[in-house]
Amino acid sequence: MSTSTPFSFLTHLECSQCGASFDAQRLQTFCPDCQTPLLARYDLMSVAKQLKREQFQTRQRGMWRWHELLPVQSEDQIVSLGEGDTPMLHLPQLGSELHLPHLYLKDESLNPTGTFKARGLSAAVSRARELGAQCLTIPTAGNAGGALAAYAARAGLPAQVFMPADTPPANIEETRITGAEVRLVDGLISDAARLSVEAARQSGALDVSTFKEPYRMEGKKTMGYEIAEAFAWSLPDVIVYPAGGGMGLVAIWKGLGELRQLGWLDGEKLPRMVAVQAAGCAPVVAAFEKRASTCEFWQNAQTLASGLRVPKSFGDRLILQTLYESGGLALAVSDDEIRQAQQELARREGIFAAPEGAANLAALHHLVKSGWLQPRERILLLNTGTGLKYLR
Amino acid sequence: MSTSTPFSFLTHLECSQCGASFDAQRLQTFCPDCQTPLLARYDLMSVAKQLKREQFQTRQRGMWRWHELLPVQSEDQIVSLGEGDTPMLHLPQLGSELHLPHLYLKDESLNPTGTFKARGLSAAVSRARELGAQCLTIPTAGNAGGALAAYAARAGLPAQVFMPADTPPANIEETRITGAEVRLVDGLISDAARLSVEAARQSGALDVSTFKEPYRMEGKKTMGYEIAEAFAWSLPDVIVYPAGGGMGLVAIWKGLGELRQLGWLDGEKLPRMVAVQAAGCAPVVAAFEKRASTCEFWQNAQTLASGLRVPKSFGDRLILQTLYESGGLALAVSDDEIRQAQQELARREGIFAAPEGAANLAALHHLVKSGWLQPRERILLLNTGTGLKYLR
Repeated sequence: MSTSTPFSFLTHLECSQCGASFDAQRLQTFCPDCQTPLLARYDLMSVAKQLKREQFQTRQRGMWRWHELLPVQSEDQIVSLGEGDTPMLHLPQLGSELHLPHLYLKDESLNPTGTFKARGLSAAVSRARELGAQCLTIPTAGNAGGALAAYAARAGLPAQVFMPADTPPANIEETRITGAEVRLVDGLISDAARLSVEAARQSGALDVSTFKEPYRMEGKKTMGYEIAEAFAWSLPDVIVYPAGGGMGLVAIWKGLGELRQLGWLDGEKLPRMVAVQAAGCAPVVAAFEKRASTCEFWQNAQTLASGLRVPKSFGDRLILQTLYESGGLALAVSDDEIRQAQQELARREGIFAAPEGAANLAALHHLVKSGWLQPRERILLLNTGTGLKYLR
Repeated sequence: MSTSTPFSFLTHLECSQCGASFDAQRLQTFCPDCQTPLLARYDLMSVAKQLKREQFQTRQRGMWRWHELLPVQSEDQIVSLGEGDTPMLHLPQLGSELHLPHLYLKDESLNPTGTFKARGLSAAVSRARELGAQCLTIPTAGNAGGALAAYAARAGLPAQVFMPADTPPANIEETRITGAEVRLVDGLISDAARLSVEAARQSGALDVSTFKEPYRMEGKKTMGYEIAEAFAWSLPDVIVYPAGGGMGLVAIWKGLGELRQLGWLDGEKLPRMVAVQAAGCAPVVAAFEKRASTCEFWQNAQTLASGLRVPKSFGDRLILQTLYESGGLALAVSDDEIRQAQQELARREGIFAAPEGAANLAALHHLVKSGWLQPRERILLLNTGTGLKYLR
């Protein structure tokens, strides 16, 4: 009478806007009617019946230990380089300076290719291959391109990567060495995105652009699962996140929501989600301040934090929803503040963070000064990648 | 009647040459009589009685889950950035080309600072601070300097780092940003070593040079523990390791020896250990071919794999012993072969390895051709770090 537990409890895809249902067993992109992202849905009721939250802890390390809550249907379809299960570090020295004794950093630089992009691309490439994709394209500010190139090589699939010509050299080199085709674009990621769509249309490739296919988000939501587990299923009060495309922010929120539905969280309170942007490219901050539901395209985007140079995200609505629902906020920091925070994090705690990750610490200074944070709150900064990729 | 398990079962230090015993509860360097490294010893009998190998698996990730077998005496003295528990990856595409279906790579680039040096320095800095060190110095080919700088910053200790002036720029920058004092040396790591000793003598700092203090090895031996655990306590047949200072090779061997003494290994067979060097700096290969017990200083050392540019290791005797005891060997590969292997690893498996790590794959081609490897053997390559640190 015993039935074995399915490898994945994925049921269907759902439009984040109109709620329409889409078949998850074929390649999908986004909702053609609403032009908004699709979200993967699972039979959470059955997961709750058949699994306990403690089971995941004893499995082999890496984000695929959450496979029942991920989209891939069979183990042999997983394309992995060992992503996930990054460290949660207490920051005692910075915490003491800022009078925040419960200050933490999740260090996503300890992922393959040195950034959090690995999670999303591991999931997207696995699922794309499982569903028959023959070739992949991506527009990128840099790190996602390096990650796609690595996972495509691991999967044995060809990849085309469109990136601004002034992307950090490390991103260009890491992408080239894997054999991906690098296309340098005179412009920003928004220009790269148009070319990626065009290339996909011409060649029949799948465009795995942020929010434009449903599975990168599934990889990234495992950050939320790991955060909950690391805090013993009682969530931190605040999560501070650098928002370029902003998918990680939405993905963590989705992951936490799933855990709540599963009944696996102790306590009902979810964290306030903070989106940090660069002063030179802050469309989410501008929209948030007007309580708008979508962003306007940011003209002349400029910042040294190349990952934050995203003039308008395809998932803008979901980013803003997350901020409003969680009682969080969006704020911008200057490049000088980012540079200073990067040094501070390195000198005080030994962490050489990407500028995007350092931006969180810059934002923290503002949030402490303004009184938005309480001294006893548990605060988590997300470092999205390694500073090594930004050397000139 | 119940007694609690001690945090560490460290008992004493032992000269690797004369066997003399040294007090582990004060700062020590190496045996003054033999001028050879000291090895940390543990009460393994008690460990075997009080612990089971399966217990370690359920603990929080990272190398400090092996704390009973590590030197630090209390948890609050650990200086950690989340090192250890790096992925073990099967290499199906390269394995199929080489007719080695059981080919694996342990990817040490997923450590803080992007290399395996993190393990050793986490242990050494923790123990140095616990025993009262006020300041640390190190000579380095690059990556160890970056790691010392990070862990010293995390520990709140000042550090001086001596490195060749032509060390990869990423190493210099990562060291500087943490606030460590970088001293560029006109020469090789051997010249840097002299200056580090001199600086330590003048300032009273502790010189944490490879093999010259006993605890870096303890951090690195956890690679051996993780390998055993990942292979379900039945070891691979061959471990291929790029030997510069060569400490990792000796450390893995020490770790496996401890596991055998503990009775935690299934089967008696230990792996054959292979030391890979660069043709332009191959003192271990030269000594191995003569069956010598020590190395001669290699003149005019040159290779793009900067971590392999070590003309003579302070632990040469232990490296050679490991090769002889294990039935392994040493071999050299050219810089061209390294470059080609680096690209091969990136294109076939999506891993952008450091040149030192890629050297292992170059060596593998030779070992397959010569018939030294059997097709059914389980072979493990150790990638010591990320290729990102070698961009010019």
